[in-house]
Amino acid sequence: MIPTLEWTKEGVRFLDQTKLPLEEIYVTATSYDDVATIIRDMIVRGAPAIGVSAAMGIALGVDRSKATSIDDLSKEVEKMSDVLAKTRPTAVNLFWAIERMRAKYYALASMEGITIPQIKQKLIDEAQRMYDEDIQACKDMGAFGAELLPKEGTVLTHCNAGALATCGYGTALGVIRAAVERGAKIDVLADETRPYLQGARLTAWELLHDGIKTTVLCDNMSGSLMRQGRIKAVIVGADRIAANGDVANKIGTYSVAVLAKEHGIPFYVAAPWSTIDVATATGDDIPIEQRDAREVTHSNGKQMTPNGCGIENPAFDVTPAKYVTAIVTEKGVLRAPYAESMRTMMDEIAETAKA
Amino acid sequence: MIPTLEWTKEGVRFLDQTKLPLEEIYVTATSYDDVATIIRDMIVRGAPAIGVSAAMGIALGVDRSKATSIDDLSKEVEKMSDVLAKTRPTAVNLFWAIERMRAKYYALASMEGITIPQIKQKLIDEAQRMYDEDIQACKDMGAFGAELLPKEGTVLTHCNAGALATCGYGTALGVIRAAVERGAKIDVLADETRPYLQGARLTAWELLHDGIKTTVLCDNMSGSLMRQGRIKAVIVGADRIAANGDVANKIGTYSVAVLAKEHGIPFYVAAPWSTIDVATATGDDIPIEQRDAREVTHSNGKQMTPNGCGIENPAFDVTPAKYVTAIVTEKGVLRAPYAESMRTMMDEIAETAKA
Repeated sequence: MIPTLEWTKEGVRFLDQTKLPLEEIYVTATSYDDVATIIRDMIVRGAPAIGVSAAMGIALGVDRSKATSIDDLSKEVEKMSDVLAKTRPTAVNLFWAIERMRAKYYALASMEGITIPQIKQKLIDEAQRMYDEDIQACKDMGAFGAELLPKEGTVLTHCNAGALATCGYGTALGVIRAAVERGAKIDVLADETRPYLQGARLTAWELLHDGIKTTVLCDNMSGSLMRQGRIKAVIVGADRIAANGDVANKIGTYSVAVLAKEHGIPFYVAAPWSTIDVATATGDDIPIEQRDAREVTHSNGKQMTPNGCGIENPAFDVTPAKYVTAIVTEKGVLRAPYAESMRTMMDEIAETAKA
Repeated sequence: MIPTLEWTKEGVRFLDQTKLPLEEIYVTATSYDDVATIIRDMIVRGAPAIGVSAAMGIALGVDRSKATSIDDLSKEVEKMSDVLAKTRPTAVNLFWAIERMRAKYYALASMEGITIPQIKQKLIDEAQRMYDEDIQACKDMGAFGAELLPKEGTVLTHCNAGALATCGYGTALGVIRAAVERGAKIDVLADETRPYLQGARLTAWELLHDGIKTTVLCDNMSGSLMRQGRIKAVIVGADRIAANGDVANKIGTYSVAVLAKEHGIPFYVAAPWSTIDVATATGDDIPIEQRDAREVTHSNGKQMTPNGCGIENPAFDVTPAKYVTAIVTEKGVLRAPYAESMRTMMDEIAETAKA
């Protein structure tokens, strides 16, 4: 198992993804502020991993708090929720995880006779539970999604929706892993994913780690390979899915989806249910993070663009639902029309919970 | 005028494009072998510039030859033609230029009473003429193409089809320059163009040099900007155009063309007539250069991919004619069906030559 993030006695330990693939270095956050910096600087990234990181950040912040009253502790929980929520705007899992931890905290805080040490331990337990649930969700997505991939051939992925974007196993790459575990002879084309190179650095690293043959290509090459008939399916992750099935994911995902459609290649999205944001009507309502121009202008410290030129650096784009062949979740596979299939599945989940 | 390449007394002087945009360094080739290395290492690149470079390489090789008989000199001309032709396979201008110089040489060599010093001077004159014709062709393309661009708005280009890809002025960027000179309020989005970053390094540099507002974006971002309605037209160059209008150009061009079609944005190609290869029936017959994996794996000396992963690095792709709105040449604008419009224009050129 790839140790993307982990609760330890010393704090929350992260595999530093900025140093991969050549160095495996770990950093340990000893405060919620550390966790916020680690998310902002993309030492950890990927929507599900960001969510659990924020949950662990709150557990850590509460655990290290010197507050002696519930009132003081509540103020601190509000402060840390606020700081963590401001790290990155697009992945909805971040807000979902913070809300779940806040709700848990207030439920505990309102219990008669509960002590602060008890609250601390229960919040650590809750964050740990979210960690375990994330891994289980990825495995379940894998089981559902494996059926969709070809029994043999090349699958394209963009960015990193893998073990490194989750607590382990991965969403899109989890589906690939599950297909391979079930005997499919799949090799992977990984878009390098400029400017941060998550595909070249992270996807290639973790798939080779598991013995899955992986080829890196520049983002501008996949269209030509599709035209040559060399790609059988595309599978990517998601940072937020709107109520109508529009998908926000790493910049470049939309272009890949259009190219897949043009070539009649299925385009799959794999994401946990926590990525679906029913409060967001369509993709147009999803805030898109703009990151520092320096990620584009500089490469390993060297400036590659002339002084005075403008820079675009949106971190995400929106793929309208009409380009998405299916969405793989841990509860099952959604198909268009998505508003309807999501509602049906939510009802089923509610039924199961009641039973 | 940007001094991409120049005949000097010392040899053929090149602006070293591997050092741009931060350093303006010149290298002087003093043998045809030097010119071959300079083309292979992409110190000079761009189909029209490669063609004239090869012509100057032959002029240089002949000029520096110690041959005392026409027979010996002919053997050397064959040798240098062969070496120069093997530098890069896709741009047809290279072969066109070499053939023109060989034909000129043999025409001269067969003239009664001609001396070797006379041949040398006439070949230098011929290479210079090709240089001048290239600049004039770009200006003429500009005049024809300027009409096609919007009077105001953003134009996307991919790679560098500019002054740096020609002897000056440029093909696609020449059309943009001409439109701006005629009063159009155009700003340019330049795809950075991985792996060699011709857009980020060269296109941005030369357009800013001329005061044209330029914004660099990663290759995976233009689709999303098209969806937002922020791009009014696309214009690119070409390395070879087949008899049916299929266009080989820098890798990623095809993806841009598909995206333009999906968004109803016109997709223009600007290239001199010497880029049209009527001997190549369709794009499938165009040889596509595969370049060193290291261009993708390493960035400023640092390895970005894990050991053991495969790499794709095709330098070009083919855009089928159906995606091309028009081809701008120095003789006029071609429209589909291209086989027909090319034939008609060729007949007109022949008529004019006769008259």
